[in-house]
Amino acid sequence: MSRRPTKLSMAKNWLPRYTGMPLDGFGDHVLLTNFSAYVRKFAEQFGCDIAGLDRPMQAATNSAGLSIVNFGIGSPNAALIMDLLVAKNPKGALFLGKCGGLKKSAEIGRFILPIGAIRGEGTSDDYLPSEVPALPSFKLHKFVSQKLVAHKATRDYRTGVVFTTNRRVWEHDAQFLKRLEEAGAIAIDMETATIFIVGHKNQIARGALLLVSDFPVVPEGVKTEESDASVTEKWVDLHLRVGIESLTDIADHGETMKHFRY
Amino acid sequence: MSRRPTKLSMAKNWLPRYTGMPLDGFGDHVLLTNFSAYVRKFAEQFGCDIAGLDRPMQAATNSAGLSIVNFGIGSPNAALIMDLLVAKNPKGALFLGKCGGLKKSAEIGRFILPIGAIRGEGTSDDYLPSEVPALPSFKLHKFVSQKLVAHKATRDYRTGVVFTTNRRVWEHDAQFLKRLEEAGAIAIDMETATIFIVGHKNQIARGALLLVSDFPVVPEGVKTEESDASVTEKWVDLHLRVGIESLTDIADHGETMKHFRY
Amino acid sequence: MSRRPTKLSMAKNWLPRYTGMPLDGFGDHVLLTNFSAYVRKFAEQFGCDIAGLDRPMQAATNSAGLSIVNFGIGSPNAALIMDLLVAKNPKGALFLGKCGGLKKSAEIGRFILPIGAIRGEGTSDDYLPSEVPALPSFKLHKFVSQKLVAHKATRDYRTGVVFTTNRRVWEHDAQFLKRLEEAGAIAIDMETATIFIVGHKNQIARGALLLVSDFPVVPEGVKTEESDASVTEKWVDLHLRVGIESLTDIADHGETMKHFRY
Repeated sequence: MSRRPTKLSMAKNWLPRYTGMPLDGFGDHVLLTNFSAYVRKFAEQFGCDIAGLDRPMQAATNSAGLSIVNFGIGSPNAALIMDLLVAKNPKGALFLGKCGGLKKSAEIGRFILPIGAIRGEGTSDDYLPSEVPALPSFKLHKFVSQKLVAHKATRDYRTGVVFTTNRRVWEHDAQFLKRLEEAGAIAIDMETATIFIVGHKNQIARGALLLVSDFPVVPEGVKTEESDASVTEKWVDLHLRVGIESLTDIADHGETMKHFRY
Repeated sequence: MSRRPTKLSMAKNWLPRYTGMPLDGFGDHVLLTNFSAYVRKFAEQFGCDIAGLDRPMQAATNSAGLSIVNFGIGSPNAALIMDLLVAKNPKGALFLGKCGGLKKSAEIGRFILPIGAIRGEGTSDDYLPSEVPALPSFKLHKFVSQKLVAHKATRDYRTGVVFTTNRRVWEHDAQFLKRLEEAGAIAIDMETATIFIVGHKNQIARGALLLVSDFPVVPEGVKTEESDASVTEKWVDLHLRVGIESLTDIADHGETMKHFRY
Repeated sequence: MSRRPTKLSMAKNWLPRYTGMPLDGFGDHVLLTNFSAYVRKFAEQFGCDIAGLDRPMQAATNSAGLSIVNFGIGSPNAALIMDLLVAKNPKGALFLGKCGGLKKSAEIGRFILPIGAIRGEGTSDDYLPSEVPALPSFKLHKFVSQKLVAHKATRDYRTGVVFTTNRRVWEHDAQFLKRLEEAGAIAIDMETATIFIVGHKNQIARGALLLVSDFPVVPEGVKTEESDASVTEKWVDLHLRVGIESLTDIADHGETMKHFRY
């Protein structure tokens, strides 16, 4: 009677369908991004093909076995890619996301390495009870942190808690702003908590390196067309570079990652 | 001191940024879709331009003042477009979505006109208390219902409750399947409840005409590359046509829509 | 071991006991009311007997097979009658209730055809999870809507969401009033959500045609003996008449009702 599909069989069918990349095209480490530009820059740098230009997600893999996937925006897409990656069971997945800074100290262009995320998105509730905190894998973040420190070009990075929400238009909402302040969040984004929880559920080592792209709580900080382009130009290359170097380095020291769910 | 942006000012700045279409390019009635193919077919049919090919959303407007927007997939994107539409305050918005059928009677290719949606997505909780039911606007659905009946090409459409979730990979999860069954949902999708609730909050008349594109609760019904293409080929043109005719007809009888939040 | 009574066996024993009417005395369509006057007027109009004058509920059935039951007031009684009707498995049940208007547009004497109800009463939580919306059967309301439009005597009817509560003395409670407003409810009553949910659970096609009998959110609008009598005199006859004609008409077009849970 048990003819229900398993998660693994579904993931093996769906990951290639969503990305246009065959299963064995994926490497052991995966960068996750919301932006096609990241995949394009990655492909240019390593001279590799981009799969899935006609699919919901695009993917590329370099010769060192590092993959990058543009999974789209928002917590459902974040949950989806973290479920689909079960098909490959990668050694590590690092989300290179953008976030809105909530503290003066988290200026635009600053990197944030979140030590946890507030599950304001609902999506992760389908995976683990709400009392389970959304956390990255420590060892993975340690590698990223070392890379951040090594880069002279980066200013001091921030650590702290990120608030993950499904809302985008909230800057006018006093009640929501109060909730952010009470929670002590240093930034707000739309995917990190989901990636952490679904990664935990699926036992995938995961992390997030966030780039502060706007400062939405003051009117002049709300993201506009101009401000967004400016951030992209200045910081995205560095963002991607730190991500690439982190996961490449982890690949070389991969043994130390195993046995750790967090 | 009160320099916080208003929702309206944000929407007016953001809607053009997300779609590449100026505010006055939008018509009074808006079709919402998750698929770029719908926008392309619409533009071909009416010989109009597609805005936003380099943006997160694409949009087109025909000479009768009917617009179509591809807002992407998932409840956060659904909430976003229903917030951004505040900038235009359209007279009606109809979501042309795809869903998974949960009942034998809701076979592939069948249309569903949901009379309500179960808020399993979390996103709408940021807009209205969970006790508020997610409902379409009665008068808008009455128009669509009349168009469906008029089309000889369509089989009997279904009414019932749709379960909206952020999950995609759930067909293996016995607990989730039980929840769907207990709720009596006839289909599952990722946007309808959000569109209904955020539309209610923003006082935008809204509806949803869903096309059953798979039947996920039996193993052979889970969507695959082949099955998806087959549905697209057979039913999408009719889906779009009913949507266009419904909102065009409403535009001609617009008076009867006003004064009703539902 | 398994000597526990079934719901059906209980309902078959209890429905006659509560109403004083034998099972085969019930027709295929049932009007539900809270007021003995409705049953009396019905019996006078059709020259039929009233059963249960010494019981908790009174009932009458006309020669066309339309029944009316006064089940009393409140959500527990509403749940009870919708459970007892399982004994008969009627083709449709229409609640003719009174409600308090919450919007200026829902003036006294106005009819409301609720497209959904907010489950503020707790009673329905014993039947279906709270995430399931309380909804009428689409086809049944379509019939009632057509009858309302056909009656020249009725003003425009309203559609919208009704808040169902177990509270009666709440007009002084600012927090409760805020909850009503946030929910966007156009009226408040004590039975509709329960009838919708228990009817859904028991697969009985159900609807509600509500008469606005007071406007409780302004002090002078709270129901008094005089105001209630005035409403009764003016509108009750029409209320009952639309109910009778709707279910009589459905009886003549009954085929179209089947196969639909909603």
